[in-house]
Amino acid sequence: MSISNDIALANRLADVAGAAIRPLFRGDWQAEQKEDNTAVTIADRAAEEAMRAILDSERAADGIIGEEYGSVREGAARQWVLDPIDGTQSFVAGRPIFGTLIALLQDGWPVLGVIDQPILGERWIGALGEGTTFNGRPVRTRACSALEGASVATTSPHCFAEAEVDAYLRVVAKAYPRRPFPVYGGDCYNYALLASGHLDLVIESGLKLHDYAALVPVVEGAGGMMSDWQGHPLDAGSDGSVLALGDPARLEDVLEAMAGA
Amino acid sequence: MSISNDIALANRLADVAGAAIRPLFRGDWQAEQKEDNTAVTIADRAAEEAMRAILDSERAADGIIGEEYGSVREGAARQWVLDPIDGTQSFVAGRPIFGTLIALLQDGWPVLGVIDQPILGERWIGALGEGTTFNGRPVRTRACSALEGASVATTSPHCFAEAEVDAYLRVVAKAYPRRPFPVYGGDCYNYALLASGHLDLVIESGLKLHDYAALVPVVEGAGGMMSDWQGHPLDAGSDGSVLALGDPARLEDVLEAMAGA
Repeated sequence: MSISNDIALANRLADVAGAAIRPLFRGDWQAEQKEDNTAVTIADRAAEEAMRAILDSERAADGIIGEEYGSVREGAARQWVLDPIDGTQSFVAGRPIFGTLIALLQDGWPVLGVIDQPILGERWIGALGEGTTFNGRPVRTRACSALEGASVATTSPHCFAEAEVDAYLRVVAKAYPRRPFPVYGGDCYNYALLASGHLDLVIESGLKLHDYAALVPVVEGAGGMMSDWQGHPLDAGSDGSVLALGDPARLEDVLEAMAGA
Repeated sequence: MSISNDIALANRLADVAGAAIRPLFRGDWQAEQKEDNTAVTIADRAAEEAMRAILDSERAADGIIGEEYGSVREGAARQWVLDPIDGTQSFVAGRPIFGTLIALLQDGWPVLGVIDQPILGERWIGALGEGTTFNGRPVRTRACSALEGASVATTSPHCFAEAEVDAYLRVVAKAYPRRPFPVYGGDCYNYALLASGHLDLVIESGLKLHDYAALVPVVEGAGGMMSDWQGHPLDAGSDGSVLALGDPARLEDVLEAMAGA
């Protein structure tokens, strides 16, 4: 299976997810709380069902790991990881900055990722050896010469465990010795904007595989890097702590700031 | 001067601001830090200049209070309050959820407000006695039967003074006894979405007159209410603490939660 066939399929998955989501945006999405106390809507479910139907039919040997409907064919070397709406809270609030996330893992490593914003018609695709595109045009992260002055984003202060808050705030203090402060909210959209050179650093924690798998090829294909909070590459077994840097040269500065060095 | 003439003028102001901002979105906006350590870009400045030129020519007797270029004709009973880009941090990060804010104060009270999102082509207008419209169609806030389960938004955890954090977190704990948590980010866009019935409560502090003046007619014209953290109506002399409720019936619950009652 060539990567270009997989990219074409991932585009179709994003298309059907978007078609399921768009009619429910600012509409009758019927949210409920799941057992893990995160929110799910009929838009999440309809979008994941539509994507799984295509995968079951056209990639019958591949595994699927979906946020809403779990895993099938767990032993397969190729696994599609689906998050139909990353940023459900943003979706139900009527903000068009959530995203559909689609990743392909090969032996646990993300090799293809899609971040799709179906309301704005914005799609970022990253694939191993292919670079990252935004609506078909190549994009690059921007250089960042120092942590001081870097633009930082994180979705929510509540994503950090109590023991992580200080490390986060040390990075904020280094990046912003005076105001302004980081931008909050945004979910996957922050990583997409970092890939396009509009942000320098995203710091989060508590992410699940379906939250971060698609981000890695998008960010790294654009010249950035992603890692956990120890600087290790992200794979299917990562702990959910996540750094994304537009300029990989700043990794040591961020890790030092987190450690209080 | 009839309110419909003022509404027509406010639409023209939003049009010229948007025309100044759009070419610089995700472009060469050249941010710098102001003396108060907030950010300003050439988009903020160009948008405010364009609006002031129209006001100087067509409302020569009215005062202007602008975020970037200060006040003129401070003694006038009618004051136009301009924030060319509310959410400059969001703008420079490439997120299309900032807004241009235009308010008209009569004797210190906001009687007309515009929240305009120039990238998405979304405009909310509220005016005393006229109700609130979104792109020309009337909108209403939604009912909220209890604080528990309410959808809460706030732009940034850093907006709260140290003494305010506990009050904020008490409201969060009441609204979200389990996860999920509030949505962050959004600036003026949260108030617009509340006016359209997609959020129940916005809690912020540290806002300036140009941040909140335009929000009041938009939220209240849609059936919601705005106040400071003591429940008092907002005028030109308010302290910058702000509550917006889609359902005014929840005010006591919010004030009680903040007080720890």
